Amino acid sequence: MMQNNEKTPLLSRLSPNSNSNSEAPLLSLSGPVVTIIGSGDFSRSLSIRLVSCGFRVVVGSRDPSRVAEGLFPDGVVLGSQREAVKAADRLVFAAVYPEHYHTLLDLREALAGKVLVDVSNASTVGGEGPSNAERLAEMFPRSTVVKGFNTLSAWALQVGAHDGSRQVLICSDCSSSKASVLQLARSLGFTPVDLGGLFAARTIEEAPLILFPSWGRPVLTTFLLFLFFYGYSFLRQVLLPYLDKGRNNFYQLPLVLVNQTLPSVALVTLALVYLPGILAAVLQLARGTKYRRFPVWLDHWLCSRKQLGLLSFLCVVLHAVYSMCLTLRRSSGNAAQVRAPVFTQVDQMVWRSDLYLSSGILGFGALTLVAITSLPSVGNSLNWREFTFVQSGLGYAALTLSVAHTLFFGWDFAFDPSSYSYFLPPVYMLALILPCVVLVGRLLLFLPCLTSRLTKIRRGWESRQHRPKLSQELGSGSGSTQVDSPRAFGDV
Amino acid sequence: MMQNNEKTPLLSRLSPNSNSNSEAPLLSLSGPVVTIIGSGDFSRSLSIRLVSCGFRVVVGSRDPSRVAEGLFPDGVVLGSQREAVKAADRLVFAAVYPEHYHTLLDLREALAGKVLVDVSNASTVGGEGPSNAERLAEMFPRSTVVKGFNTLSAWALQVGAHDGSRQVLICSDCSSSKASVLQLARSLGFTPVDLGGLFAARTIEEAPLILFPSWGRPVLTTFLLFLFFYGYSFLRQVLLPYLDKGRNNFYQLPLVLVNQTLPSVALVTLALVYLPGILAAVLQLARGTKYRRFPVWLDHWLCSRKQLGLLSFLCVVLHAVYSMCLTLRRSSGNAAQVRAPVFTQVDQMVWRSDLYLSSGILGFGALTLVAITSLPSVGNSLNWREFTFVQSGLGYAALTLSVAHTLFFGWDFAFDPSSYSYFLPPVYMLALILPCVVLVGRLLLFLPCLTSRLTKIRRGWESRQHRPKLSQELGSGSGSTQVDSPRAFGDV
Amino acid sequence: MMQNNEKTPLLSRLSPNSNSNSEAPLLSLSGPVVTIIGSGDFSRSLSIRLVSCGFRVVVGSRDPSRVAEGLFPDGVVLGSQREAVKAADRLVFAAVYPEHYHTLLDLREALAGKVLVDVSNASTVGGEGPSNAERLAEMFPRSTVVKGFNTLSAWALQVGAHDGSRQVLICSDCSSSKASVLQLARSLGFTPVDLGGLFAARTIEEAPLILFPSWGRPVLTTFLLFLFFYGYSFLRQVLLPYLDKGRNNFYQLPLVLVNQTLPSVALVTLALVYLPGILAAVLQLARGTKYRRFPVWLDHWLCSRKQLGLLSFLCVVLHAVYSMCLTLRRSSGNAAQVRAPVFTQVDQMVWRSDLYLSSGILGFGALTLVAITSLPSVGNSLNWREFTFVQSGLGYAALTLSVAHTLFFGWDFAFDPSSYSYFLPPVYMLALILPCVVLVGRLLLFLPCLTSRLTKIRRGWESRQHRPKLSQELGSGSGSTQVDSPRAFGDV
Repeated sequence: MMQNNEKTPLLSRLSPNSNSNSEAPLLSLSGPVVTIIGSGDFSRSLSIRLVSCGFRVVVGSRDPSRVAEGLFPDGVVLGSQREAVKAADRLVFAAVYPEHYHTLLDLREALAGKVLVDVSNASTVGGEGPSNAERLAEMFPRSTVVKGFNTLSAWALQVGAHDGSRQVLICSDCSSSKASVLQLARSLGFTPVDLGGLFAARTIEEAPLILFPSWGRPVLTTFLLFLFFYGYSFLRQVLLPYLDKGRNNFYQLPLVLVNQTLPSVALVTLALVYLPGILAAVLQLARGTKYRRFPVWLDHWLCSRKQLGLLSFLCVVLHAVYSMCLTLRRSSGNAAQVRAPVFTQVDQMVWRSDLYLSSGILGFGALTLVAITSLPSVGNSLNWREFTFVQSGLGYAALTLSVAHTLFFGWDFAFDPSSYSYFLPPVYMLALILPCVVLVGRLLLFLPCLTSRLTKIRRGWESRQHRPKLSQELGSGSGSTQVDSPRAFGDV
Repeated sequence: MMQNNEKTPLLSRLSPNSNSNSEAPLLSLSGPVVTIIGSGDFSRSLSIRLVSCGFRVVVGSRDPSRVAEGLFPDGVVLGSQREAVKAADRLVFAAVYPEHYHTLLDLREALAGKVLVDVSNASTVGGEGPSNAERLAEMFPRSTVVKGFNTLSAWALQVGAHDGSRQVLICSDCSSSKASVLQLARSLGFTPVDLGGLFAARTIEEAPLILFPSWGRPVLTTFLLFLFFYGYSFLRQVLLPYLDKGRNNFYQLPLVLVNQTLPSVALVTLALVYLPGILAAVLQLARGTKYRRFPVWLDHWLCSRKQLGLLSFLCVVLHAVYSMCLTLRRSSGNAAQVRAPVFTQVDQMVWRSDLYLSSGILGFGALTLVAITSLPSVGNSLNWREFTFVQSGLGYAALTLSVAHTLFFGWDFAFDPSSYSYFLPPVYMLALILPCVVLVGRLLLFLPCLTSRLTKIRRGWESRQHRPKLSQELGSGSGSTQVDSPRAFGDV
Repeated sequence: MMQNNEKTPLLSRLSPNSNSNSEAPLLSLSGPVVTIIGSGDFSRSLSIRLVSCGFRVVVGSRDPSRVAEGLFPDGVVLGSQREAVKAADRLVFAAVYPEHYHTLLDLREALAGKVLVDVSNASTVGGEGPSNAERLAEMFPRSTVVKGFNTLSAWALQVGAHDGSRQVLICSDCSSSKASVLQLARSLGFTPVDLGGLFAARTIEEAPLILFPSWGRPVLTTFLLFLFFYGYSFLRQVLLPYLDKGRNNFYQLPLVLVNQTLPSVALVTLALVYLPGILAAVLQLARGTKYRRFPVWLDHWLCSRKQLGLLSFLCVVLHAVYSMCLTLRRSSGNAAQVRAPVFTQVDQMVWRSDLYLSSGILGFGALTLVAITSLPSVGNSLNWREFTFVQSGLGYAALTLSVAHTLFFGWDFAFDPSSYSYFLPPVYMLALILPCVVLVGRLLLFLPCLTSRLTKIRRGWESRQHRPKLSQELGSGSGSTQVDSPRAFGDV
């Protein structure tokens, strides 16, 4: 396994325990020697992990004597950088800061033919010039450079095996070196993902610097909706009455207005989860084929549905909590001004308030079940039809119950002219527009003619202008092409 | 790796990047070529996954020119079906609809000796005739057919590596071909499960069509319990007073009756979680051995315990929410008829209401902790003794606290003859029967004589009529047989 | 694969199905034969798992005729112990109780050269004498003993593949045998962890006997805090008024006092989560280096932060529920004595109660998000910067909002001399001490001079007394050593 014949004193410390029963194993890792240059936190955590998975580890440090006692686990051999590199079978981790790469130039001959793994992060997003991995590849032309392992924290490296697989992004120009590193990542219990050649190194290096990349737009959307509805309520209920009649409703700002805004935001966001599916279905029906790509904005929207749904759920939870707290406040004078349903012993009002509460609770329950299946471990235990049933079926049920909840809430007052203060409708009416559009659209898509045509399109049928030239091999006049297994209706 | 010597123009596009540092790798996958026939969604998602895990992919389509630009990732070579099959090392995925299998018959010679992976689903449950995989095996007698990968949605295939392992059901008549597919599934980050020979193909094909197979009976049970208790409450509190005295209590239907039914259902369902364990223990004690199989109905009941527990938890949560909402309604007239505890300043009543609320909250908290450990990721981070401690210990605590909650609620009124309207006891009394049976049974099983005998039986001891013939090797008179590691008491 | 040439009748039953298409597989497991001695629950579950992952299994029992029909799955060959051991390729599981190891002594020659896997647990913690694995190694000197698989319950073995990876602790003196068992564990879908030589066997054997090892001290801390605050409240609000004025406040015991204690415990526990980070930062600043190890108590404290945080969250949840229930009780007389905010129409009080409720709800929401990311599956889907952002950033937000909540609650009364009954301050004032210390300390650490110095130290800079001798290779006067990638500030 050594690249040269001489067995250094270092390597002799790595010989396996002599054992009278050792035979050529049938299934076994040969316990290869992995070298780590550098003796910091990352080096320490990686060595702990490698040792616990059966590898032999050599750590190379500039000054081995200065490394603290007990910092590295038993089984790790400490040596100078040159000794460590010579002892490596193939893989050498460069666990040093990018600004110190030049200090390794002395080891160029020792590193020739080995695989150098670059574990550094970028310092800023969108920087100029080559990535760290590309700079390293230029400095060491006789070694192959593989980029990887930089997205893990030292702590995850150390305990990761206990908490399940974690994603490790790998890229390299040399496929055999990349394959070695992929295999090592799997042996350590990670899930490696191959991102291609070394040009992808910058993306990998910037990955840890970007927080929650898929949440940016949904959070912005939800925030803008919140500002809109809060501003509308503020205008209609606080500012205009103040300017017009001098009434002081500013006490409503922290709780009451927030509790009107939250359900509106939740309703609209939940509608935004199901609207792109309907738009996509309409697009497929209009085009008569499913093979043309969607517009980019629709693609992004379809990928954000999970985040929008979870934000909607968050707003619903806060709305439920705020509602309870508001009702607990026994300021009856304030309550009257918020147009809360007046609880009297009139049977009709009791029926309406019970329906309003019931539909709200059941809608909340349905949305909670959808949110629970969004947890990675729960979602993974369902097959895709079950997952679609919950996310799509229960989700539409939650949307319908929420619309019913809002309609029951506002039923009395929608026809009362006094609701339209300053010719502005109550905020819940604005919130109902988009959900009703979504529900009506979905019902329309249930029409037999549309349903059958959409199912045909999704099974691969194409309308006349898209039909392919009939060749000998097709042999049928239906024009159906060979496509893959069917998906549940409603899923794009 | 090619089955014939000629290297097609297709395959030349698959040669790895030339690299001056390429050496024979010590640990590496040889990056075999996997072929997919078909160019639909499944084919696309599978190719994305294969490429990201380091495989080389060739996709065969009837008309490669019609495949949309950018549909397949870089690294995938597109060609005709014949070219693609010839380029394959061994594995060929048939990603076409079953009704189009006959169009592949031209490729019979090219497919000879290769492994054909059938990824189709059944169209209906319980159909007649051979499964799709068996039909494919008849059509291609010189290839081996492996059934698999049909339970994953295209989306899960594409992103699955990030969310943890997913189950893939595999079956085949040829064990070496099956082993290849098992290994491939593992390399892609899935958890393959071997279901045996091709006779299991129908089961695998129908698997995606059956939603939540393990939840059917528990949901039915819970629903029937709900109907029973709701009907009983309706009869006793709405219908009989209406027929008898003309009192109109129909307003109680949406909220009040539901809030009496939910806790009853929750109590009985929670008791049903722990009852089979007690029955099993009694059966083992009566039979004097643990080696006789349980009756089938008891086996099924034992396997449904998790689902019953989660349904009970759902009912408890809804009950808590409904209770809060009901109390918020300031209809004092209605409240009096529901026999809610009357909150006065009488010390005794305050003590009783506080105990009633406290026990309810603590029981709810205990059941929440049990529900949290039912989440797959949390349950997996506990070892089996910790898991048993929570599920069994905290579960029994939750049951006891719930019974206490109900007893405190009803204490005053159980001895008041006016509770027994129309000679029917209040609904919570009915609900208490089964939980009390369970708790008493559990306490009885704590008796020293029964405990020691049961532990002996679970360690393998057998009573006289079951004792084996003493052979020379046994060498002891106790009749203990060699069995496995002990389980926690209370677990079957 | 057989150790001797003769092919027993047993093994002939294991030959793969004859198949005209069988060729030498490119990627395949050779389906090695694994033997299990013993026919109890563990043996049964392990065989089910092995068969479902493509292995061939032979089970050796003392009396194969006594094994119940259908107990073992198809594909498992049942034989005598001697036959089974002879049929094994290499791995033999000893699934028998430790007290029965001596009955296997006849098989010493048959077991020579094979790997014996010991799956037993210890019966007590902290016992004397050699571990079971070491005793087994003494009895079978010509076989190698590997300790493992004892931490899994039979049920987890059987279904584990569906629920994700589970930890398996392995140790052995022979590294090639250990490597075989590590590989087998991975093939079965588990995550093996190598704990070194056979001296670690006792630790592994005792592991299942210790429940929740990392929760012991945090739970004790939280419980002691609960006792302290409850006792203080009891003294101040129940006992002293009773002794002093004969007032009977004992009704407060189950709900009111608990609802004062819970938020105090939650506040202090949450402060205890972030205090060690600040102490560690101060220690690093004072010492001028990050390479000296922390004191042992600080290390343990840092490792308990997750558990303390979850316990704090539990107390917050219970506090929210208790608060709702208490407010629902319409005992106005009692309410007055608890110094709840009096809800009048005075604008100031309405503002204060709204702020108090708002900050409480938002702090609760923030802490819920932190708790959700503590779920293993959710935490694993975040990279470490996102994880730190939530746990550290949102956590400090939750702490700040909770302190604000408490300050708004008590604002009116802190300056009212009547609050200080018997010269004892209200309990929430005691609870505020530690959180305020933590928040002030954190703000101080934001000072530019301290921040820059701490970042330098964490990147490896060392103050003068720790600086290493400048060698030729360093070539710079800054004294920076080569260290690993930077961590987020605030993390140790």
